[in-house]
Amino acid sequence: MNASHPSQRRSLDAVTRGRVLFGGDYNPEQWPEETWREDVRLMRRARVTSVTLGVFSWSTIEPEPGAREFRWLDTLMDLMHDHGIDVVLATPTASPPPWMGRLHPDTLPRDADGRTEWWGGRQHFSHSSATYRRYAAAITEDLAARYAGHPALTLWHINNEYCTYDHGDEAAAAFRRWLRERYGTLDALNTAWGTAFWSQGYDTWDGVLPPRRAHYLTNPAQLLDFRRFTSDMLLECFRAERDIVRRHTPHLPVTTNFMPLWSGQDAWRWAGEEDVVSVDLYPDPRDPLGAQHGALVQDMTRSQAGGGPWMLMEQAAGPVNWRGVNHPKPRGLNRLWSLQAVARGADAIHYFQWRQSRQGAEKFHSGMVSHAGEHGRTFQEVVELGADLARIGPEVAGRRVGADIAVLHDWDAWWASAQDGRPSARVDLPDVLHAWHRALWEAHLTTDFAHPEHDLGGYRLVVVPQLYALTDAATDHLLAYVRAGGTLVSGFLTGVADQDDRVREGGMDARLRALFGIRTLHEWWPLEAGETAPCDGFDGTLWSEEIESDDTADETIPYVGGELDGLPAVLRRGRAWYLSTLPEPDALRALLTRIATDAGVRPVLAGLPADVEAVRRGDLLFLLHHGREPVVVDVPGTHHDLLTGTAHTDRVPLGRYGAVVLRS
Amino acid sequence: MNASHPSQRRSLDAVTRGRVLFGGDYNPEQWPEETWREDVRLMRRARVTSVTLGVFSWSTIEPEPGAREFRWLDTLMDLMHDHGIDVVLATPTASPPPWMGRLHPDTLPRDADGRTEWWGGRQHFSHSSATYRRYAAAITEDLAARYAGHPALTLWHINNEYCTYDHGDEAAAAFRRWLRERYGTLDALNTAWGTAFWSQGYDTWDGVLPPRRAHYLTNPAQLLDFRRFTSDMLLECFRAERDIVRRHTPHLPVTTNFMPLWSGQDAWRWAGEEDVVSVDLYPDPRDPLGAQHGALVQDMTRSQAGGGPWMLMEQAAGPVNWRGVNHPKPRGLNRLWSLQAVARGADAIHYFQWRQSRQGAEKFHSGMVSHAGEHGRTFQEVVELGADLARIGPEVAGRRVGADIAVLHDWDAWWASAQDGRPSARVDLPDVLHAWHRALWEAHLTTDFAHPEHDLGGYRLVVVPQLYALTDAATDHLLAYVRAGGTLVSGFLTGVADQDDRVREGGMDARLRALFGIRTLHEWWPLEAGETAPCDGFDGTLWSEEIESDDTADETIPYVGGELDGLPAVLRRGRAWYLSTLPEPDALRALLTRIATDAGVRPVLAGLPADVEAVRRGDLLFLLHHGREPVVVDVPGTHHDLLTGTAHTDRVPLGRYGAVVLRS
Amino acid sequence: MNASHPSQRRSLDAVTRGRVLFGGDYNPEQWPEETWREDVRLMRRARVTSVTLGVFSWSTIEPEPGAREFRWLDTLMDLMHDHGIDVVLATPTASPPPWMGRLHPDTLPRDADGRTEWWGGRQHFSHSSATYRRYAAAITEDLAARYAGHPALTLWHINNEYCTYDHGDEAAAAFRRWLRERYGTLDALNTAWGTAFWSQGYDTWDGVLPPRRAHYLTNPAQLLDFRRFTSDMLLECFRAERDIVRRHTPHLPVTTNFMPLWSGQDAWRWAGEEDVVSVDLYPDPRDPLGAQHGALVQDMTRSQAGGGPWMLMEQAAGPVNWRGVNHPKPRGLNRLWSLQAVARGADAIHYFQWRQSRQGAEKFHSGMVSHAGEHGRTFQEVVELGADLARIGPEVAGRRVGADIAVLHDWDAWWASAQDGRPSARVDLPDVLHAWHRALWEAHLTTDFAHPEHDLGGYRLVVVPQLYALTDAATDHLLAYVRAGGTLVSGFLTGVADQDDRVREGGMDARLRALFGIRTLHEWWPLEAGETAPCDGFDGTLWSEEIESDDTADETIPYVGGELDGLPAVLRRGRAWYLSTLPEPDALRALLTRIATDAGVRPVLAGLPADVEAVRRGDLLFLLHHGREPVVVDVPGTHHDLLTGTAHTDRVPLGRYGAVVLRS
Repeated sequence: MNASHPSQRRSLDAVTRGRVLFGGDYNPEQWPEETWREDVRLMRRARVTSVTLGVFSWSTIEPEPGAREFRWLDTLMDLMHDHGIDVVLATPTASPPPWMGRLHPDTLPRDADGRTEWWGGRQHFSHSSATYRRYAAAITEDLAARYAGHPALTLWHINNEYCTYDHGDEAAAAFRRWLRERYGTLDALNTAWGTAFWSQGYDTWDGVLPPRRAHYLTNPAQLLDFRRFTSDMLLECFRAERDIVRRHTPHLPVTTNFMPLWSGQDAWRWAGEEDVVSVDLYPDPRDPLGAQHGALVQDMTRSQAGGGPWMLMEQAAGPVNWRGVNHPKPRGLNRLWSLQAVARGADAIHYFQWRQSRQGAEKFHSGMVSHAGEHGRTFQEVVELGADLARIGPEVAGRRVGADIAVLHDWDAWWASAQDGRPSARVDLPDVLHAWHRALWEAHLTTDFAHPEHDLGGYRLVVVPQLYALTDAATDHLLAYVRAGGTLVSGFLTGVADQDDRVREGGMDARLRALFGIRTLHEWWPLEAGETAPCDGFDGTLWSEEIESDDTADETIPYVGGELDGLPAVLRRGRAWYLSTLPEPDALRALLTRIATDAGVRPVLAGLPADVEAVRRGDLLFLLHHGREPVVVDVPGTHHDLLTGTAHTDRVPLGRYGAVVLRS
Repeated sequence: MNASHPSQRRSLDAVTRGRVLFGGDYNPEQWPEETWREDVRLMRRARVTSVTLGVFSWSTIEPEPGAREFRWLDTLMDLMHDHGIDVVLATPTASPPPWMGRLHPDTLPRDADGRTEWWGGRQHFSHSSATYRRYAAAITEDLAARYAGHPALTLWHINNEYCTYDHGDEAAAAFRRWLRERYGTLDALNTAWGTAFWSQGYDTWDGVLPPRRAHYLTNPAQLLDFRRFTSDMLLECFRAERDIVRRHTPHLPVTTNFMPLWSGQDAWRWAGEEDVVSVDLYPDPRDPLGAQHGALVQDMTRSQAGGGPWMLMEQAAGPVNWRGVNHPKPRGLNRLWSLQAVARGADAIHYFQWRQSRQGAEKFHSGMVSHAGEHGRTFQEVVELGADLARIGPEVAGRRVGADIAVLHDWDAWWASAQDGRPSARVDLPDVLHAWHRALWEAHLTTDFAHPEHDLGGYRLVVVPQLYALTDAATDHLLAYVRAGGTLVSGFLTGVADQDDRVREGGMDARLRALFGIRTLHEWWPLEAGETAPCDGFDGTLWSEEIESDDTADETIPYVGGELDGLPAVLRRGRAWYLSTLPEPDALRALLTRIATDAGVRPVLAGLPADVEAVRRGDLLFLLHHGREPVVVDVPGTHHDLLTGTAHTDRVPLGRYGAVVLRS
Repeated sequence: MNASHPSQRRSLDAVTRGRVLFGGDYNPEQWPEETWREDVRLMRRARVTSVTLGVFSWSTIEPEPGAREFRWLDTLMDLMHDHGIDVVLATPTASPPPWMGRLHPDTLPRDADGRTEWWGGRQHFSHSSATYRRYAAAITEDLAARYAGHPALTLWHINNEYCTYDHGDEAAAAFRRWLRERYGTLDALNTAWGTAFWSQGYDTWDGVLPPRRAHYLTNPAQLLDFRRFTSDMLLECFRAERDIVRRHTPHLPVTTNFMPLWSGQDAWRWAGEEDVVSVDLYPDPRDPLGAQHGALVQDMTRSQAGGGPWMLMEQAAGPVNWRGVNHPKPRGLNRLWSLQAVARGADAIHYFQWRQSRQGAEKFHSGMVSHAGEHGRTFQEVVELGADLARIGPEVAGRRVGADIAVLHDWDAWWASAQDGRPSARVDLPDVLHAWHRALWEAHLTTDFAHPEHDLGGYRLVVVPQLYALTDAATDHLLAYVRAGGTLVSGFLTGVADQDDRVREGGMDARLRALFGIRTLHEWWPLEAGETAPCDGFDGTLWSEEIESDDTADETIPYVGGELDGLPAVLRRGRAWYLSTLPEPDALRALLTRIATDAGVRPVLAGLPADVEAVRRGDLLFLLHHGREPVVVDVPGTHHDLLTGTAHTDRVPLGRYGAVVLRS
């Protein structure tokens, strides 16, 4: 498996054509035609390059079964084209019209408790429903046929944020088919699921169900396979529509928008099926680590795009409406975070949505044109950002971001670990990933993400925050990487299980134990909230371990005091490091900085003030200031800031939420 | 729409006849006949004037379908009459007998998840069930026919605390009928609900459902209409029974008991259908603001009664049984809070229930006769209160409470705002109402409540804590009020949406913005728990706003520091005030006191000690001391205390939980 | 009713034969045969005496309906026998195979919301299902027939942790049958349930249902009877299987494993149906009162066993996997807590499970052989413990633990009190029981538990932490106990209700009030979290009461300050004590110590250091040190420690988690 993507991918470059795309979801069905004219005027003011049409247009296009109402869309496609605005055309299949559920209740998903998800919201479709798929294919076919030749059309957007589960009967049948394909025989399934425990042996395929409400804990392998199945079913839906549009427009790229670190889709597998990788990104403006979260998602999305450019398909110009308290973006933050995405490889800055709705469930989700309208601060800042992107676009579009460090992440490992009945409910993989990425981000060490079976040869340092489950092949791969001279640093709960969530003998893969110098992993000592494990020089958090080293370790950092006094908290054997706890942030950053330095990896820039992020994209240096007090950054030499045209020698001043894009 | 009530209302005065009614729900079905005799003896000891019979008597009267067992009730009606006790006769329709659900499962409600509400509790009836309504009408008919001429009968009590929802199929059909009546055409519904968003366009009425479990947020207008529909369906149930009893006893007034600030019923509309308005009131004896909560409910109930007398239909003599920890009332509190209700217009002090149950789900809910019986403190205090009420009754019954201030409240606006997907889940309308009422109550400013379309001409000051949605007519009305010289003060989130929950252009009605001097409402900045927005002179809480004034404001109080530094937190333009934050309690009280003073409104009494509440009813002055340490109140002149007959000159002493009713 | 058990019980002594049994659940279905050989080797290393086979083997034995696969079990039975290991053979009926639910959906339970409990976990069987019972009987019959004569078989283990509820239709029919048997007539049921309240009168048995989702509170007597019914239905299941195995092996004892203080089974009734009482015990290693919890469960289990030996059927050698954070046992704790169980009467120390699973829902629940294997600390400590038990077995097996104090506990009273709509949701019976037992445990006062209708004649002191409901007979019994010279001390909320949860007149049984010198119980004053009720000399917690004494009390301790100032918090009348609050721990311990002393009860040993527990079993003195710092205990005279063979004179040193078993 390899995320570097096949050359037959239709490139985003043909869409961007030397620009950083700027625009958003456009849902004109909500507005009268006179508003469309006003929209186009404002889009041009904001230098919008592209809009996404049709995401939720199913009931408008097909108001009753089999009907087709395309004229309004014809008008809009033409209107966009007439004003030089590209169209990302979406299949409207994320939200079936009410008639679908009414006439075909089999299209509605059911949860583990047997409760139906009704229409009235969105995404109320079962991925396994033959009826749904038939209707979805039909409208995709007609949409593609109609607009295949339209000059405004530049990119296909399939569905929207695939994210549904179904535990109902048609899904159960599909699950059984999927399992037969995976396991071949019922014996193999019984073995993989360990059904000898708790008397769960299946005597016929018909007895196998999706995980449904149970008296107590459900079989973990069943839960794991249901996650895999769900991702695969959704992917089948995607591929079916993708293949239809490709038939009509073989030259146009196809994408679907991911949600960041969304557990429902194995994004590595999905990315391999897309031409262009795109993501929706909504950091909380109040989160002190919001920028780091953004960087993590951007690094991961870029990596899913094989290192090449990707699209920020949705973000918010202001507040969202789905948090408990929804904060607006302070002045400058929308621009700063947009430029951060560009710095980390985005060639498109799109929003949900162009014009803030006045009705419906998302009317308090901001738009590029907020309720305050043309004179609102939000739109004013959108206009300024549009100008910025237009200015830098030709220099950045298509450029790649280089990284010497790969952080490993794998959906299978996540799914296997994210279950009840585990050693500690406090261990949440996304938190752990964020903690490790934060340490690297604060150290200005640019990172890619990778799947454990990807080619890691190009990286000097591979970081494994946590890979609870590892296949034999993945373990081979990591060992080979170290043998070949790579530096590997791993957090706890790595290599515990195999692909079936079967615990490895000894509680951790024997070859990994040997790699790190671990003789016996006696016990895990998970920590309570607020509890720390004092170590020599720092405090561990979240987790600790009772490890007996095999005396081959070249270096250890011991626990100090308590039950684990003197036992190794950190082990190094050659270039392989194992951390049996999560050092508090400063300590983890210091340790990873040292390991990176030893591995020959240098930060983007030395001596940066706190709050200033530095990223290189191609030969450009982005400096992004996440603080509110002005700072000056030392950058030896003379550089031109593409945003302002100013030249800076040795010292670059940055104001509140300031950014520069420097070229030597 | 006007809450001043039609003259054809049967008056409560005919029931009270110069008394303040004293009594409670009486459920003698629970007791053997010898207890009835004992009850009557104790009722007379306590000077009970009236009891409510029949509230939960359905299965006793109709033990099997169509049966009628009235003899026990005959006995009780006669017994009451023989002892000079009036009867408030309830239709027993709040709790159908078990046979109803067994034989007619269609009478059982279903929740949004499709779960049935079974018998075994109470109120397990669907408002939309034709079967339920048929049975309810039949028993009401027979009850009314039998007791129409009984001399004990003085008032009808329909059902009890109407509060059910139903998302099932018969309710769905009723919802569609209701919607057809409201909207006429499906197009109108699609427009009002904004179904163009998220592909929710309906092609047939059959596709419309009550809001049921959905994948994500449900259409907000659908949710809003379902609230209206539910209130209307329950009101249909009420009217059907009311019309039956009226046919038999055209001269007798009819009521149903509200729950305070209960979201399920639009009490303004309901009050208009009643002859007498009554409410159930259960402040937590431990709540430091329990007395203010009582005052709010009493002010609102009085206002629903058109300013005239109303009934406190249920309160607890001691603890209730539905809180986490149920506190008894300390000595004196039952009397104090009862006199507070009288001060604020109640002509009836009733309890749930006369004798505390020994079985059933409410056996730990206190009664006037508690488990401790005749010698228990609770009953002793009931006896004392009965004597007090008998003493003051002739002087207070029928008297009106005057108020120069109206606080606006509207169920539609509440329903529209109380949904998911809003800017801040921390904004809860009842909390906001309480905060504003508290400021006025602590300033001893007597307030009515009013609907935004009521006649406001008689008020010097109109206070709008929050009216998220306002119709055009309501906005007209508020503007006309200010034009006519009235003073208006409004909190944030007012005039945001129209009657369909469609956001007004600019995020707030343009005419309201002009009224307050707001050019642009850029962004809402809701505050986190514990967070404040520092302003010049006080701290704002809960909410803040990024407002650009249009320079016509006569006065502003700015935010200080932070992102909103220098922007207006409070604006005044002429007699119109806008508060974009919720000042902390002392500041809100000070500001409203100043505004009231400027508007010519004076507190009931100046220089009152903390904890002493003062209310004027007719020409009587009630002083109510909510503290435990004795105080002396300055009341210039000589007054007689109706409770003790004592005369006080200039200085009135009040002990712990003390009260006086002064006449000059 | 009497828990001293009939002499026809098959004795545990025949199983133990002078040993303390040592072993655990063994689920070899999970492992290949070569692991079985390895298991036997390690079992012998650890001196394992016995293993439990078959607990979850249904789908292995009966992979399809009617099939029988016994050969693997034959092999294992023989293997055990060949290595001198006894077998506790379990009926596999706790977890039906998937085919059962698939072919017979009527075997699946439904919860109060109507949701099915599906297979995929365990215990997905309805106790009321005729189909389930038929299949369970058939496999039990065949199992018993096959192994009746096997020399390894020493004990039967029926099902596992009976704990299911069912609110479905077959359960409803069974509930009605159970109720008819209990009440005879519908009138009697209506009276017992108080259905006159809230219009719940039943006109036919068909209308009676298990408590299902209701609009508001459900009838409390219905809830109470449903608890009784559930315990009885499960007991029927147990008895059916027990009777089958007894037919085949009349000489062998039968048990089923309880969960400690589990609300679903009336363990007094159940214990009377078993030959041997066994329990599963999992204190949290992190709980500072974990050892006291263990002691409580051990005391209760011993009492259920009629004071004779009992089995610790399950405990964990290390962490469990069902807490939020699952802590391992520090070195020494497994031994210490195992010896504590022996000290308090256990003649078997068994674990769940022998070898930690690598697959399935409990793979992170520790085993005697942990994932770390033979060299892991866990197994090493198991080996040491096995040696210890082998050493002391001959001296302790079959010996009895004496106690002069009985703590009363009753499931009916618990069920009646553990409902919504009660005075305080903060009052949780298990917490109250633990608080009282803790006081006695910390005072080194050995306690039995008893049912209020047991023979109490042998105890000097009877302690009633809380018996909310008491039958007339139980009250008689307590009064007689005091009349006969016994000392009784009772906590609050005792004698409030009768067997139907009908509140006694006066809110507390009049005879109990007279016993304690209470004239009137005016009001309960439950306390909020963190709130205390100051009393003369200590602080009360959780609860307080407004009591008027009848002046016959010999001694009172008053409340100080607040609303209850001067009223009695504690009353003593002769040998009867009433505590209307829960004194904080030190005060309760001091008070109970004084009462015990007055009653002639002495602690096991005087002058013990904190953290050292002392228990006498037969003529042996166990000293158990629950602290980590070494201590020295004064034990006058010379004693031999059976564990080490060392003699100690006057002073016995104990290290971290140290234990000695002393014989004079």
